[in-house]
Order: sequence, then structure tokens, then C-alpha cells
Amino acid sequence: MKIGDKHYRTIWLGDDGWSVEVIDQTLLPHAFELMRLTNVAEAAAAISTMVVRGAPLIGATAAYGMALAAHEDASDKNLQNAHAMLLATRPTAVNLRWALDDMRGRLLAVPQGHRRKLAYKRAAQICDDDVATCQGIGQHGGKLIREAFEHKGGGDAVNVLTHCNAGWLATVDWGTALAPIYTAHDAGIPIHVWVDETRPRNQGAALTAYELGSHGVPHTVIVDNAGGHLMQHGMVDLCITGTDRTSAHGDVCNKIGTYLKALAAYDNDVPFYVGLPHSTIDWSIGDGVAGIPIEQRDGEEVSHIRGVNGDGKGTTVRLVPKGAKVGNFAFDVTPARLVTGLITERGVCPASRDGLLELYPEQAATAA
Amino acid sequence: MKIGDKHYRTIWLGDDGWSVEVIDQTLLPHAFELMRLTNVAEAAAAISTMVVRGAPLIGATAAYGMALAAHEDASDKNLQNAHAMLLATRPTAVNLRWALDDMRGRLLAVPQGHRRKLAYKRAAQICDDDVATCQGIGQHGGKLIREAFEHKGGGDAVNVLTHCNAGWLATVDWGTALAPIYTAHDAGIPIHVWVDETRPRNQGAALTAYELGSHGVPHTVIVDNAGGHLMQHGMVDLCITGTDRTSAHGDVCNKIGTYLKALAAYDNDVPFYVGLPHSTIDWSIGDGVAGIPIEQRDGEEVSHIRGVNGDGKGTTVRLVPKGAKVGNFAFDVTPARLVTGLITERGVCPASRDGLLELYPEQAATAA
Repeated sequence: MKIGDKHYRTIWLGDDGWSVEVIDQTLLPHAFELMRLTNVAEAAAAISTMVVRGAPLIGATAAYGMALAAHEDASDKNLQNAHAMLLATRPTAVNLRWALDDMRGRLLAVPQGHRRKLAYKRAAQICDDDVATCQGIGQHGGKLIREAFEHKGGGDAVNVLTHCNAGWLATVDWGTALAPIYTAHDAGIPIHVWVDETRPRNQGAALTAYELGSHGVPHTVIVDNAGGHLMQHGMVDLCITGTDRTSAHGDVCNKIGTYLKALAAYDNDVPFYVGLPHSTIDWSIGDGVAGIPIEQRDGEEVSHIRGVNGDGKGTTVRLVPKGAKVGNFAFDVTPARLVTGLITERGVCPASRDGLLELYPEQAATAA
Repeated sequence: MKIGDKHYRTIWLGDDGWSVEVIDQTLLPHAFELMRLTNVAEAAAAISTMVVRGAPLIGATAAYGMALAAHEDASDKNLQNAHAMLLATRPTAVNLRWALDDMRGRLLAVPQGHRRKLAYKRAAQICDDDVATCQGIGQHGGKLIREAFEHKGGGDAVNVLTHCNAGWLATVDWGTALAPIYTAHDAGIPIHVWVDETRPRNQGAALTAYELGSHGVPHTVIVDNAGGHLMQHGMVDLCITGTDRTSAHGDVCNKIGTYLKALAAYDNDVPFYVGLPHSTIDWSIGDGVAGIPIEQRDGEEVSHIRGVNGDGKGTTVRLVPKGAKVGNFAFDVTPARLVTGLITERGVCPASRDGLLELYPEQAATAA
């Protein structure tokens, strides 16, 4: 997507034909800087320090990390070491393991002399595939926004509420929840986005507001408490969020607070959609509320917050009384009954086992 | 309530018999300091700069402000000026105008030589009345917590979720939403409070956590996004919040985000109670969602946040991209259908016109 007049992906091959460039997301929204990755250790560090984040982008960076390893030394031993080093960065990310296993399997299957070239080719393909998947979500979801626009009479902007960041910064390009928004915006449909700040890590206020602003999409940042009031008063036409894991029955595990917004949408007849690549569907789990474990993270994410002070300097401040006990639940599960539809790269379906299997019939045997 | 071993109110007469002392709430939770008010201008400044806040405490401070005016010069002119100066501090607070009109009416009705003594007596009475009202709410609500404790088998702590600060710091003592919690805790019922941080102004993380901690009530601070997940997983036995205005039909206007918690409570069969003095009931409004105007406040409360930095120094940081548009809706309205009961100083009633009129039959003619 665009930053100013220039189109960016979140990761790309350097002009030298072998190094890899990424946007340093730890500095957003307060500074835009690129980082050049020249070896596997730097790729691993970029993932672990969250210079890059978002499951699809983590996978893409890991794939390029394997290419950087092959560039240096394409021996079995070096590739195995690279796999291990990269995997250790964020051990729970599903796309990370998938990309690493895919790369290792393909590289070890060919003679050493062919590995370097194959590695770069495959990493580029993984990136392109992610872009195509997100574009598919954008096309299918964009139609829903167009319909909402026409339903409103074709004059006023469509108001979309989103939670957290499931935008292009979390993928290679386009995003998942935000792909329909970019698609509609680029097609000339007037659109305005309510951006939940998304405590505790504030990915909405920091990243979603940044990327929408950079691409020129009108938006307003609100606290996570505000969405119910907005929906109650007709100020939201539809909600679109992303998902970290979706059960085979259509339950949606996403950033903490998503469930509260889905309840408000349901209570006010506001459609609630979820954008997702098929890779986030966990076919082994039926009941997501009972079956998906919820990660509890470091309490400092709640007790402290980072921003820039009056001098423009990054600063962390404590918000709670010294020593106060804090709880930090990272995700919640929105039951399928509250979800109007799932927007995937293959189309839009009801949030149900039947709905998902109509789009993914090949999963009929494995789906819980 | 207690801070350490010492019992405090939020406002009291100084040892000299005429000056007034308050807790400087702008410094909480990071520092505990008292402030001495010696004239009406200082009382007005304490209200306008939010050294004191919360409708009942604002009313009490205004009453003592009139006493300070009478101490200095009990002429009609000086008392009229004091009334005007104090009223201008927070023009929308209902209790403020009520307390000022009450004081002015009583003082102007007696000879000048009797006004000073009467002013201090009446201000003290307004404070005592507020304490008695909150104690009543505590007694009636405390029974609900005891019932929840017994319902759980009398072993495990009762988990209560609250939003914002409707504690003793917002009143003269005890609080409204927190009065039942203090009453139950002081009666030996094991209790644990989930404290919503309450963005944008973080009164939960700053004030509720501080006052519960100071009084020794176990609690955990969470982000406003977390309550739905907790209720979904049986980690909340009941919710209690305060209210800024309650309609004659039982709709509750309270800090933004209250509605989202009420939806989650309803979806998970968790009782949702609201603690209120009768003074917050607006008998002229029936439908609170349509009828209660929602204040929009300065966007800086959303875009920026204040805490203490690593050196313990109060610091404000910006959270959003420079120039990002923000929206700041201060309150929302929870429809009566989501409210299990209203806890008033006269007892607990259903959130409905009939329910309220059973406790306040004298309002039958005026209630919308």
C-alpha cells in the first residue's frame, strides 16, 4: 500500500539482489525507517524484536531468512541451523513453522549448488502468494462495502469499525481485515474507519491509524470503550476484524475485546465480518470458546505504555499504582452466532461448519 | 475509607476550625498529598483543576467553598459572587448547582451575623448526608455480594468487575459502586475486584486500583477489552458500576464502555448492578438512549496519556500518529433491559419505571 506517493510492501529484495529490506515497525507511528537484513541472525532478530510482526509477515521474513542462510552457506548443516534459529524467535506462530518447514524441505531436496537460487525464488513466491490471498479477501470484502454504500443511497461514506491491526503491516501487502477497506477506497467508494486503539499494545492507535493515514483513508481513532455507543447511534455501518485462529465451526479467536464489539454489533443489527486467509482456520477445533487456549502475556503491557513525550522522544510511563496486580489476557473468542460472515480468499461464507466446508470442501474429512 | 491504617474522608474541616482539607487527586496514584483550601478561589480552583472530582465530592467542596466565603465576608454580595465563581468551575455537574443553591438559599435567609456558623454546619451536614447515602447503598449492595458468596458455596472469593471510579474518592466516603464492595470486605466476605482501567482517563487504573489497594481489597487491573473474556469463562460473579445519570425507566448513563460490559454480562448470565444515590435519577427522561445527550471531550484525552516515567516523574506521551483524528465520547447509555438491578440508598429495585417508583413513590407525578 502507499506511504505518501510511494507503494510499499512490508518486505522486499534489496537492489543488490540478495539482501532483504523491511520496515522497522517498532518505530511506527512516530518514525518511518527501513532496515536491511544481510544474514539469518539479523532476520531472526527482526522477528524476535518485532521489527516485523503479524503471522503472514513473520512467515515471509522467515522464508527470506532461509534464503539469506543459503546465500551464505547452502550446506545441510547451515540450513538446519538457520531453521532452528528462526523457529526459536516466536515459537507459537503457525505461519512461521509452516514457512520454515516448506523452505527446508524444498532446499534439502535439491543439490547444494541449486539451493541459493531456489531459496530466493521460493521466498518471493511465498510473499506473492500472501499478497494474492489478501487481494482475494479484499475483492470479496470490498463487495460488501460497496453493497453497504449502495444500501445507504450511494451518497454518504461507509463507516467501518475495526479492532487491532490486521492491515498490510501484518501481512506482505493489503492485509486481511483492512484489504476490503483498501479495495473499496481504491475503487472510489467513500469510506471512513473507526480505529479502536486496542489496548494493551495499541496496535490500532499506532499501526492501523498509521497505515490508513499513509494510504489516505479517512479514519478516527477511538478508545476501545467507544464502539458500543457508536453502533447504538447508527454511526457504524459494518465491522471488520481479523482473526488469529478460527475454529471449524466459525468461532473467531482474535485480539482481546473483539468479542465485546461483536456483542454490540449484534445488539444493534450492525453486520460483523471477519477477514481471514484459510491458513488461520484450525480444522481440529469445533467449539472455539472451550477449545482455543488464551495466552496470558506480561503484565507490563497493561501497567505501562509507550509513546513519545513532548520532545518527540520514545518514552514508557507507568499507569497503575506501584506494585498493583494486573492481568493481561491477549485474545478472546467471539462465538460464531455473533459473526455475520467470514471473508476468505475464496469468498464470503456464514460462520459455521457448513459455511466453511462449502468454500473448503477438501476439509470435509478433517473438520471437527 | 482506609489509607494504610488511617481512616480518611475526601474532604474535612481543618484543625483550625475554618479551613478545609482535601486529597489532591491529580497526583494519585503516584503520590498522596493533602491540599488546604483557605478561601473560595482556592475551592473553585480545586474543583476546576480536578484536585477533587466525582459529582458528590464536587457538591461537598462547593458547599465548603460557600462556607469559606462566609468566613471571609458574609455579605449578600460576597456570597453571590462565591456562588457564581464556584458554579462556573464545572457547569454541567448536577450536584454542584444543587449544593450551591442550597447553601445560598439558607445563608441569605438569615441575618449576616449568623451566616458563618450556619454555613459550616450545613456544609458538614451535606457531607454527612452523602456518607449516609453511600452507606445505605453499601448495606443494600453488600447483601447481594453476601448472597453471591453463599451461592458459590461460601468458600471462594466473590469476583466483582467494576468500570471507572465510583468509589470513595468520587464521594465523601464509601463511594457508590464500591460501597457494597467495602461493606462486604469489612464484613469479612472474601472478595476480589477486576478493575477496568477505563480509557481514556484511566480512572480505574489510577483511582479505583489506588483506593482498593489502600483499603486492602484484593484486585487486579485489566484493560477495558478483557471483561467479556472473563465473563465468558466464569471469572466474574457480578458487575457493579456507578452512573452519572439514570433515566426514569432505568437506563443508565455512565462512563463510556459500561454498555459493552453490560452486554457481556447479559450474554453470560452474570448479574449487572448499578449503584446510585437518588440524586442521579433524572425523572424527566424516560428513554435514556434517545434522551440523554453524550458529552464529547477534548481529543487529547485519547491521543495522549499521563503516567510516571522511569524516574518517577509525571510525564505525558502521545500514542497516535502526529495529527491523527481522534474521537472522545465520554459516556454511553446502558439500556435498562441489560441491568439486573439498581442499588440505591433505599434498597435494590428492578431497572424500570415501576421498580424505581416502588422505592420513590413520591416521584409518581413527575416520572416520565
